Amino acid sequence: MLVGVDLGGTNIKAGLVDDTGLLIEKLSIPTETHLGKDRVIENICAAAREAANSIKWEDICAVGVGSPGPLNHRTGVVITSPNLPEWENVPLADEVAAKLGVKTFVENDANAACWGEYWIGAGKDCGSMVLLTLGTGIGSGIILDGRLWRGSTGSGAEMGHMVIDLDGEECACGNRGCLEAYASAPATVRRFLRMKGNTSGEVTADMIYREASAGDVTARKALEETGRYLGVAVANIANVLNPEIVLFSGGLAGAADILIPVIREEISRRAFDVVTTDLTIATGALPDDAGVIGAAGCALERL
Amino acid sequence: MLVGVDLGGTNIKAGLVDDTGLLIEKLSIPTETHLGKDRVIENICAAAREAANSIKWEDICAVGVGSPGPLNHRTGVVITSPNLPEWENVPLADEVAAKLGVKTFVENDANAACWGEYWIGAGKDCGSMVLLTLGTGIGSGIILDGRLWRGSTGSGAEMGHMVIDLDGEECACGNRGCLEAYASAPATVRRFLRMKGNTSGEVTADMIYREASAGDVTARKALEETGRYLGVAVANIANVLNPEIVLFSGGLAGAADILIPVIREEISRRAFDVVTTDLTIATGALPDDAGVIGAAGCALERL
Repeated sequence: MLVGVDLGGTNIKAGLVDDTGLLIEKLSIPTETHLGKDRVIENICAAAREAANSIKWEDICAVGVGSPGPLNHRTGVVITSPNLPEWENVPLADEVAAKLGVKTFVENDANAACWGEYWIGAGKDCGSMVLLTLGTGIGSGIILDGRLWRGSTGSGAEMGHMVIDLDGEECACGNRGCLEAYASAPATVRRFLRMKGNTSGEVTADMIYREASAGDVTARKALEETGRYLGVAVANIANVLNPEIVLFSGGLAGAADILIPVIREEISRRAFDVVTTDLTIATGALPDDAGVIGAAGCALERL
Repeated sequence: MLVGVDLGGTNIKAGLVDDTGLLIEKLSIPTETHLGKDRVIENICAAAREAANSIKWEDICAVGVGSPGPLNHRTGVVITSPNLPEWENVPLADEVAAKLGVKTFVENDANAACWGEYWIGAGKDCGSMVLLTLGTGIGSGIILDGRLWRGSTGSGAEMGHMVIDLDGEECACGNRGCLEAYASAPATVRRFLRMKGNTSGEVTADMIYREASAGDVTARKALEETGRYLGVAVANIANVLNPEIVLFSGGLAGAADILIPVIREEISRRAFDVVTTDLTIATGALPDDAGVIGAAGCALERL
């Protein structure tokens, strides 16, 4: 038995997962980042214990934590994290392991979600896939030949920061023209407000999707533009990596019925037929649980 | 003992290669594409026999052919090739094997060159590398975890057709804003002529490099612009794949002393430090022979 934890800026999700990927128990508690790093680590441990409280703790063979931001998955050290202020070189795996008394592995959160979808979700039994998580930022995971490709220093798969427009919009990362600056949830909101002639407003990507579905032309156009940028990125992914499957997850993936047809249209214009004809483009099958299940699965792989 | 063949639009190179990658004998003959497919295949076989004429043919355990264009490396069928007119679904491996009486394997030419550099060249002993071949087009090869990543349908690693400028220049492939439309040898020549105010001229990328080296400011600027676009591509490669090494080969790689500093500057502005600090950017160590040696090496791997 394993415990998977998905550490987010707002909530910590935890679950009890068996070695086939079945999620037996799950819960979510506030991360409480404002109370500091030690409190967050306490909360991770509390969530892990709570998730496992239907069985004896000794039956847990490992804990896997999916964490945002650059980290070293070999040492379990979180190098830094935009959503966890003041986290610098935090030995997260060691600290959690010391408190819980069980082997703990840390994985990038998008990699964990990618592994979850590959293990038992929409990427099951495929040889190669790319997952893009569409939220406040755009994260990604890459599976090639049935293995997670993490990069030579463990920091690859940052597809949100692939340049698609070389002198384009500024990105939070300091670069220009990154996919994330065009196709994240906030970028979609900014575009919608601009189209409406507003400079600000209490609008979310969810609201835009609901308005688009109810017939609002501007809302639909704002989302279709996001789809077009995602299509450029998927064309690049297809031409460069030629995976079997590209999956979308995260909040904005809820708008897949609008996004995916535009993505398909864009890649048919941009990528070689030989890399797109058999390419599956879909949403993840585990929208709420891929991170927790995948964090557990990554721990199982590394045991 | 192996024979490696590098099938180009102008010349066929062939070499006798031992199982450590040592190139014992090499030669080059005209491809004669204008005389048709059967003649080209005759020429491949003649070059292979000639390369091996210092030993008994029975001592050749396999022939590897690096061929341009989309192909199926599993079946050895060349699907199509821009530089070999009228080649459509040519069972190249079978035809060569039948004529030579020895197992024959076909590999994409950029993949073969990449494997050559990985096997015994500038990528020796690394875990992951990307090779970009800068010529009339831009080809590429990807090594991850010590293995060639060919893509799920064998058609990946077309980094020349990564979009870096979404509404940018038209590319020969039909897409817009591809790296190849900005950083190939012909793109560099076009830029140089435009900067000079000419619309045509008998200029090659080599000539531009010689003029730049001799102090011509416009020639240097034209090459530096090429370096900037390559820098955007390398930033994307670093952020997405995080390899240990990015190598350049092909004619334009001769201008590396001008290109690489600009590439370095561009990636320091664009990519995360964690993926660039330890990134080696260099030219290949086997400028003339990577294709032949790598084609032999790929055949050895697949025996």
